[in-house]
Amino acid sequence: MKVLTTIAEFKKARRRIDSTVGFVPTMGYLHEGHLVLVRRAKVENEVAVASIFVNPTQFGPKEDFARYPRDPERDLDLLKKEETDLVFMPSAGEMYPEGCSTWVDVLKVTERLEGASRPGHFRGVATVVAKLFNIVEPTRAYFGQKDAQQVVVVRKMAADLNMNLEVVVVPTHREPDGLAMSSRNVYLDLQERQSALVVWQSLNLAQQLWSQGERKAEILRQQMTDLIRKEPLARIDYISIANPETLEELTEIKQPALVSLSVYVGKTRLIDNITLRK
Amino acid sequence: MKVLTTIAEFKKARRRIDSTVGFVPTMGYLHEGHLVLVRRAKVENEVAVASIFVNPTQFGPKEDFARYPRDPERDLDLLKKEETDLVFMPSAGEMYPEGCSTWVDVLKVTERLEGASRPGHFRGVATVVAKLFNIVEPTRAYFGQKDAQQVVVVRKMAADLNMNLEVVVVPTHREPDGLAMSSRNVYLDLQERQSALVVWQSLNLAQQLWSQGERKAEILRQQMTDLIRKEPLARIDYISIANPETLEELTEIKQPALVSLSVYVGKTRLIDNITLRK
Repeated sequence: MKVLTTIAEFKKARRRIDSTVGFVPTMGYLHEGHLVLVRRAKVENEVAVASIFVNPTQFGPKEDFARYPRDPERDLDLLKKEETDLVFMPSAGEMYPEGCSTWVDVLKVTERLEGASRPGHFRGVATVVAKLFNIVEPTRAYFGQKDAQQVVVVRKMAADLNMNLEVVVVPTHREPDGLAMSSRNVYLDLQERQSALVVWQSLNLAQQLWSQGERKAEILRQQMTDLIRKEPLARIDYISIANPETLEELTEIKQPALVSLSVYVGKTRLIDNITLRK
Repeated sequence: MKVLTTIAEFKKARRRIDSTVGFVPTMGYLHEGHLVLVRRAKVENEVAVASIFVNPTQFGPKEDFARYPRDPERDLDLLKKEETDLVFMPSAGEMYPEGCSTWVDVLKVTERLEGASRPGHFRGVATVVAKLFNIVEPTRAYFGQKDAQQVVVVRKMAADLNMNLEVVVVPTHREPDGLAMSSRNVYLDLQERQSALVVWQSLNLAQQLWSQGERKAEILRQQMTDLIRKEPLARIDYISIANPETLEELTEIKQPALVSLSVYVGKTRLIDNITLRK
């Protein structure tokens, strides 16, 4: 496994590769969910590349950039065990040198949900992903369904800008009790970890109501709200039942629907989602 | 010469090319200035590609998109004579299908000059060039120095987003009397064509003053203004003496300086520039 920290070095290594490249962009502090993406990249491509970069531009000024968990040594050990071929691990200065001023903006699908709760977040995501795609030039890039809106934004950007790669979305990897894996789960203390389960439980409730024939989005939203409100440590940021591609809110669920939510558990903001489909 | 009108067809043709590709993006209505770019692309690359696309997103609502001159048959004849290998000639619907919502924004260097006179212009330019670069995947892309700020913006975008190509800038091609070649020159009637010469004359005056040791930008600007004001059909939009990379206005010309201006001659807006350097 080769670890490269500059864009020039990575591009030089990339030019020597003439086969398919699977790419897993990460912010490090890897968990099993990331490793599932790497395994998938390895299976489907001749070369597997991962990046580790806590992207400052996707964090708001009051968000957790400074305290976002980092453990590059452990990350590299894990990637090595998965037989990752190349790891790109640049500094912030390497990715955003003095004076850089170009941004990729995906409009409409970024207006609501995470985009509304985290202004500027998706501009940062789209820009860094566009940069990473140009540096890595992947055949396929792998993203987890846990970040549902990110998946929509990256797909839209790749399609709108005619990028030459396939965006592959991998189902959310969960702890045995259902909590979606996330690097931010480390922020939870024992009591919060228990309370956090209500996020998954509320999604299960939506799934159950839908399976029983309920098609009114408002009913699902209300029942989820009621369930989460019973959990004293949890505070709802948003609950959404939306078209999975446009992210427009639905009133009647006549088509596949993305049920997504953001909940604060203590000070930690968690997100999760499921798709309802026949 | 192959002419391709869809992105899928072009990408298919592109995948069969394993050698260097030189790319000349144009809005058609080709003149000798464009053909100089094509010749340069041919000399420096094994395959030469041109695109013809009048990009709607770089025109303001009150600008000349509808009446921008078009003559695709003549353009294709000219490109064929230059032995261009591939021509990409998409429709507006092919480049901007319903619902596309991704934009590339280059900040700072787009704030002044053309950016100030034409709000949204460079967002349209950067976005279409990013798309064309992804479709054509050139080794080198060729732009004329006549559009000085466009050159700065495209270079900045390519660098900031880590694009894998070289931006090559070719000196402005001029009519025998000095008028910079432009598809928009066709708008000029005989009298306006004569008046338009004042643009080039004002740049020559700046060059002359600078050669004589004048280093105060304000003096150059004032002398150019005075000269152009003597021409009744001409109306100054802006005159700028700026750092050629940042486009920040200079007071003392201690370094290379980009002298650029925009002048209305009748209803036609012309731009031109020179760089002062030792």
